[in-house]
Amino acid sequence: MDETSRKDRCKAEMEAARSFRKEVPEIVNQLVETCNRTDCFNHVGPEPIPSRETVIDIIHRMNRILYPGYFLRTRVDEFNLSYYFGQEATTLYEHLSEQITHALRHDCIRHNLACVQCEERGQQTAITFMRELPRLRAILATDVRAAYEGDPAAGSYDEIIFSYPGLFAITVSRIAHQLWEAGVPLIPRIMTEYAHSITGIDIHPGAHIGESFFIDHGTGVVIGETTVIGDRVRLYQGVTLGALSLPKNAGEQLRHKKRHPTIEDDVIIYAGATILGGDTVIGARSHIGGNVWITESVPPDTKVFMKKPELIYKEKSD
Amino acid sequence: MDETSRKDRCKAEMEAARSFRKEVPEIVNQLVETCNRTDCFNHVGPEPIPSRETVIDIIHRMNRILYPGYFLRTRVDEFNLSYYFGQEATTLYEHLSEQITHALRHDCIRHNLACVQCEERGQQTAITFMRELPRLRAILATDVRAAYEGDPAAGSYDEIIFSYPGLFAITVSRIAHQLWEAGVPLIPRIMTEYAHSITGIDIHPGAHIGESFFIDHGTGVVIGETTVIGDRVRLYQGVTLGALSLPKNAGEQLRHKKRHPTIEDDVIIYAGATILGGDTVIGARSHIGGNVWITESVPPDTKVFMKKPELIYKEKSD
Amino acid sequence: MDETSRKDRCKAEMEAARSFRKEVPEIVNQLVETCNRTDCFNHVGPEPIPSRETVIDIIHRMNRILYPGYFLRTRVDEFNLSYYFGQEATTLYEHLSEQITHALRHDCIRHNLACVQCEERGQQTAITFMRELPRLRAILATDVRAAYEGDPAAGSYDEIIFSYPGLFAITVSRIAHQLWEAGVPLIPRIMTEYAHSITGIDIHPGAHIGESFFIDHGTGVVIGETTVIGDRVRLYQGVTLGALSLPKNAGEQLRHKKRHPTIEDDVIIYAGATILGGDTVIGARSHIGGNVWITESVPPDTKVFMKKPELIYKEKSD
Repeated sequence: MDETSRKDRCKAEMEAARSFRKEVPEIVNQLVETCNRTDCFNHVGPEPIPSRETVIDIIHRMNRILYPGYFLRTRVDEFNLSYYFGQEATTLYEHLSEQITHALRHDCIRHNLACVQCEERGQQTAITFMRELPRLRAILATDVRAAYEGDPAAGSYDEIIFSYPGLFAITVSRIAHQLWEAGVPLIPRIMTEYAHSITGIDIHPGAHIGESFFIDHGTGVVIGETTVIGDRVRLYQGVTLGALSLPKNAGEQLRHKKRHPTIEDDVIIYAGATILGGDTVIGARSHIGGNVWITESVPPDTKVFMKKPELIYKEKSD
Repeated sequence: MDETSRKDRCKAEMEAARSFRKEVPEIVNQLVETCNRTDCFNHVGPEPIPSRETVIDIIHRMNRILYPGYFLRTRVDEFNLSYYFGQEATTLYEHLSEQITHALRHDCIRHNLACVQCEERGQQTAITFMRELPRLRAILATDVRAAYEGDPAAGSYDEIIFSYPGLFAITVSRIAHQLWEAGVPLIPRIMTEYAHSITGIDIHPGAHIGESFFIDHGTGVVIGETTVIGDRVRLYQGVTLGALSLPKNAGEQLRHKKRHPTIEDDVIIYAGATILGGDTVIGARSHIGGNVWITESVPPDTKVFMKKPELIYKEKSD
Repeated sequence: MDETSRKDRCKAEMEAARSFRKEVPEIVNQLVETCNRTDCFNHVGPEPIPSRETVIDIIHRMNRILYPGYFLRTRVDEFNLSYYFGQEATTLYEHLSEQITHALRHDCIRHNLACVQCEERGQQTAITFMRELPRLRAILATDVRAAYEGDPAAGSYDEIIFSYPGLFAITVSRIAHQLWEAGVPLIPRIMTEYAHSITGIDIHPGAHIGESFFIDHGTGVVIGETTVIGDRVRLYQGVTLGALSLPKNAGEQLRHKKRHPTIEDDVIIYAGATILGGDTVIGARSHIGGNVWITESVPPDTKVFMKKPELIYKEKSD
């Protein structure tokens, strides 16, 4: 390429680049336009909405309070412990009451209600939640112990707290359930779906779960909104506690009805089992085998397993 | 321990530490050596390669444009809306055209081609993509509505946009599919595998997906490269739309052939179902039951479910 | 609202806010109290514990060394390559030996042992690990090749290195297995559970895995602690290599026993198959079909698949 053609090429390229950039404003106009259409979704307005990012910060802050000393780069000892909790708890309270207030106010506006007490309700709900932190710590300790007792691969309690996805999922689910019970919109679901994305375990914040709960491996577990689970229950990966098949537009008709099963105390449900329906009760101490599909109740003290499926064995010819 | 032995010990320890560190340069030499071997992989050279980190930034930037006001710590209102879009869109264009250029150039070099127009093609492809953003917003709104109608546990549209993994997966998949159709290498797959890691939903960017698509729960869903999905289709967790079993070294022979099924309009596929094969067509409005395994076509308006598997109930003796 | 009532309302609100904040110190006291209870878990004390965050940094640093040039925003070429490795390797050594030391010391204290050599053992173990990095690079290259040969959707080796969850899981698992073999507590499990959270693939660091290993899609895969896998094995999503059902309190009795299967060379295991038990051996070159459930050994060169399950087809009446 001689000097002239190189210059020409360079000029042409810059021209092209400029012409592409010139199109951006027109695209921006069309994007603004979409926000005036009723068929697109956006949250454009003066009122704040909860921040997903801040809610995730809140989860990790709670985790640091619930398992003191584990999720830090620094050290906590008996001398700085109350400063540590003081600092963490104060910041948690600030963020939590702010986010709850945003969620309540957003919900008021969505239902065209006046929002005179959202801020006070936000603060009230946050402080009520925080009062429960010591009790939460004690319940979560039963979950840690259940994991150690149920899993021969667990090397120590520390290993469970540091790394078990089941424990993280149940921790977030217990936090979210409490906010759900307090009537907080949006935030509980953001929390459990965050845990779902980290662990593959999808627990709806509406589910009631007893103490000493253990989920091993956990990927693919689904626990629906109206599930009730007793004490000392153990689940493995891929277990679904779900609803029966839904007609089209099921959304409206079934919202808030009991659609998911009840699992009584001391039940074990092995990998890949599916238990469906709001009237289905798995009786206390029963064991449900791997891959079992159940839509009816099971009495207490029962073992249910698949008839051994017929397998075909062939010598490989290739 | 007396003063002398303490000093000795301390000295011995420092000696040991130094001797370990002294080994690092030798290890570095061996690592450099591996980059000259043909059996190891590396990308060492003057040409840039797409940055996975920047591609992930791009996804989140697009998400902020596609759902304005949702994924921010700050507020958007009618007064700053066009500045907001302007800022986001300009930066998106810069990063996207740069990364596409890197991907095109990397591909040229891999195939020993001269790369005279990679930069212009990168800019062209980026701007063509951006022109589609308003249309993408409208299609994604059909997905949000499909989720609300299909899921009784959905509290509001906001909850879906904020937290549903299925919506995130389909958003990224629609973005990636467009870049895939435009012939961009590497980037579409980085995008969908990022969504896979966040959601457990593995949608290949090659898959064609109609509007009003809803995936509930989603963990374990696999949708293969040559799958075709119609409008208003609903899937649950653990559904595989896959290829029939592959012989060894299947890679080369089957690349780019239609290996995955076609799902027509208004089909529902329940949890854990597996549908395999490039000639398999699930006819419009059919329902495929949970855990069903299908390798042949199903006519329209059909319900397919498993014969109730035989279960064995035993009283527990332990 | 007139001026006076507005002022009153404002005052009342501030009073309320203050009264909520006043409760925080009392909550902090109760939290401190929980750390003196024996039924709650905490790590409060002068001794450091491994930092999960730093261990995750270490994984990404190793990834940058094992796949040079891929996971960077900057460029590596032949001129800066040894600086690059030198920098990365030195920092890796520092962090790794520190974290291993923390883990060893924490374990000594947990077992009431004196910890005189923890630091030296930490450095020794770190340097021994680092010496293996060049060999690890060569083994991982066999895994990259196995993915390309086994997956018709793979566009290039780069695509696999950049985006395949199976490759990330096996990379982390090979790293963790080496530290596991060296007797490092806690860290190997933190590593594999991090990979599990990113990929949905749960490989225990104890598992022995041969070369040219490929996991396609991967979500829901579980590979237990005492599994042994030969060379050139391929797995699909949802495969479990697990233990037989465990009695209550199984934890103590079965810790460290062989509970998981052996998979010989050149075996393929399709999606959703479950293989259980420490005495179960899948013979070389056998193929295990999708969803198959096996608790007994399979001879070499065998294909095992499900008898086609009986499906029920009904015309839809709704």
